[in-house]
Amino acid sequence: MKLKRSSRLVDMTHYLLTHPHELVSLTFFSERYGSAKSSISEDLVIIKESFETQGIGMLMTVPGASGGVKFLPFIKRETAEQFLSTLITKLSSKDRLLPGGYLYMTDILGDPLTVNEIGRLIASAFFHQSIDVIMTMETKGIPLAYATASQLNVPVIIVRRSSKVTEGSTVSINYVSGSSKRIQSMVLPRRGLQSGAKVLVIDDFMKAGGTMKGMENLINEFDAELVGCAVLVETKEVSPKLVNDYLSLLKLNEIDDSGEIAVGIGNYFNYFKEAHHE
Amino acid sequence: MKLKRSSRLVDMTHYLLTHPHELVSLTFFSERYGSAKSSISEDLVIIKESFETQGIGMLMTVPGASGGVKFLPFIKRETAEQFLSTLITKLSSKDRLLPGGYLYMTDILGDPLTVNEIGRLIASAFFHQSIDVIMTMETKGIPLAYATASQLNVPVIIVRRSSKVTEGSTVSINYVSGSSKRIQSMVLPRRGLQSGAKVLVIDDFMKAGGTMKGMENLINEFDAELVGCAVLVETKEVSPKLVNDYLSLLKLNEIDDSGEIAVGIGNYFNYFKEAHHE
Repeated sequence: MKLKRSSRLVDMTHYLLTHPHELVSLTFFSERYGSAKSSISEDLVIIKESFETQGIGMLMTVPGASGGVKFLPFIKRETAEQFLSTLITKLSSKDRLLPGGYLYMTDILGDPLTVNEIGRLIASAFFHQSIDVIMTMETKGIPLAYATASQLNVPVIIVRRSSKVTEGSTVSINYVSGSSKRIQSMVLPRRGLQSGAKVLVIDDFMKAGGTMKGMENLINEFDAELVGCAVLVETKEVSPKLVNDYLSLLKLNEIDDSGEIAVGIGNYFNYFKEAHHE
Repeated sequence: MKLKRSSRLVDMTHYLLTHPHELVSLTFFSERYGSAKSSISEDLVIIKESFETQGIGMLMTVPGASGGVKFLPFIKRETAEQFLSTLITKLSSKDRLLPGGYLYMTDILGDPLTVNEIGRLIASAFFHQSIDVIMTMETKGIPLAYATASQLNVPVIIVRRSSKVTEGSTVSINYVSGSSKRIQSMVLPRRGLQSGAKVLVIDDFMKAGGTMKGMENLINEFDAELVGCAVLVETKEVSPKLVNDYLSLLKLNEIDDSGEIAVGIGNYFNYFKEAHHE
């Protein structure tokens, strides 16, 4: 079917947004719309400019016969700052404080648009890196892992605390929880991770980093490679952290005697800057 | 900033896609782009036509002073059929068979684009219903629940097998697993569900329906209302099912002596038709 420019722009925008980090050839679009490649190229110039101006992401052009375009989701710094400051306001409410220095975040992690935006922030910090798979530990990190994976277009693998019949044979390791010092297990399906795969680990909350450290050991067990860690909230409570290199969106600084919660921005913008200067 | 039509179309498409089931006023767009409402109306006519022709969804116009437009994701029947038939081919491979009549689906549930498309299918079957929240049981249903929730723009609540310190006070019930006949528990944070809320339950796999039945009991415990159930795969093995009314995308019919797996389409298109005739 032959489409007009205006209709092509709408459909191409939808297509690129739902296929991030995927190389799409001009031929594909040209056949999809029955339009000349020169028209498609002009469309892409318009889309590229809009995506960049509006802070939707970048459109990378790969020249040559096997070339095409690739949409890389990328958030603007001010949008990220605004989003994190809204999140901080929400999290600073006193009634979120739970025993053990935890924060009640179930409602925030339950909102899909918020979770998708967190994914967009994390993906923006790692968009220039080669990542094959995202790993997370059940349960609360799962939505964040999928939201990030949707933007980077890579699969997710979920580490469990015990093996399940629905996952076939598994590999299990023991690790010491950094804050409770208890020995716990982590299980991953044997078919879950390829050797040599580049892994980004995502979780919701990090205290001492024992869970992260455990996942690092599990990644080594599969001869895969850890390329980054990202958490929504890190705490200041336990140090030194068991993991050195990680990204945090937020940092839980202090809970004073009156129960006042002090949440601030984590080290996110160091990573963001790095990504930007690549 | 004043934008041209072509740039407006790109940005409006992105905005509507990332804010489904949300009423957006013409004033909002008119101020965002510094354009007259009459121009915005013309843009929306183009977007509406493209969304419908390309099977992206519907654009509902709400007239009047407090009116605007609402994007409702809705898949085309032939796209849904094609997607399910691809999924069936993948699932029918012999090496997916696990002890106990389960299928290895971890890789499929790990692919975010596949999971998002499953969410779009489920959301299309329920798009005409009033839904306040999506409920799922940890762990495997979580990605499907979020993918659907992203399309319907409603929060997700996760039922756990045991209570966690990070969730505050909880409500717990016991239920009998339909296939194993064992007594198990389900736990939900007390703040997780409002009384009167309309709940859509989503899970990955249903054998006898014991887990679904348990979630129904939990919903009653909170004086909330179950408005629908959806699963990715139902099995033919155990009957009568403990739950009467549910949507299934796929049905695992038989595993014969040779280990051949017969997966077919579930009752999905009955629900799809209903939604279409509303």
